[in-house]
Amino acid sequence: MKIAHYEQIDAAPVELEGAVGARIRRLIGPNDGAPNFAMRMFEVSPDGHTPKHSHAHEHEVFVLEGEGTVLCGDTEHTLRPGMVVFVPPQEVHQFSNTGTMTLKLLCMVPNSGC
Amino acid sequence: MKIAHYEQIDAAPVELEGAVGARIRRLIGPNDGAPNFAMRMFEVSPDGHTPKHSHAHEHEVFVLEGEGTVLCGDTEHTLRPGMVVFVPPQEVHQFSNTGTMTLKLLCMVPNSGC
Repeated sequence: MKIAHYEQIDAAPVELEGAVGARIRRLIGPNDGAPNFAMRMFEVSPDGHTPKHSHAHEHEVFVLEGEGTVLCGDTEHTLRPGMVVFVPPQEVHQFSNTGTMTLKLLCMVPNSGC
Repeated sequence: MKIAHYEQIDAAPVELEGAVGARIRRLIGPNDGAPNFAMRMFEVSPDGHTPKHSHAHEHEVFVLEGEGTVLCGDTEHTLRPGMVVFVPPQEVHQFSNTGTMTLKLLCMVPNSGC
């Protein structure tokens, strides 16, 4: 098993092209023995965003803190804490911070997307 | 895609034997087109708990609100918001509310465990 507070798990810059002010904490994943999917936390600074991109794997997202938007396909949606977002495989998407606090999201992916 | 606040998604009693005061919201899952794994929220009332059991699939858990414990194998661990728990396949486990507020957990499972 693994048990930890998320603050005990290092945050690393998101180095994908197009990411601005975004960090990732790899909370649970293959290195912990997770056989199927991974839990990550993204922390996006004010005015920051994740890349606008698409890929073969899905995202399952839960908004923990902050204010922002998600672009999914051609439509932008407002985000607030407690919201869930399912981004299907191949859908273009981007998460942006539109507030003054850090935007914190949990983002789960299959291990193929780690 | 799917986007919603978790409060917009119905909570149903957990009807597994051994569950007390536990409800589940199926936030994202196969019915939404999720191909690999599901996101659920468990809400456990004060003095309530999930079943003490084991199964072939893993859990990836994030504690959102409240106070509680998780029994994992022979060891009980204290939970507080922001904690993550990986319960490997076949591990005996039980989540209990030890506080005065509802204990809210996100619990992800592969679709085989829905």
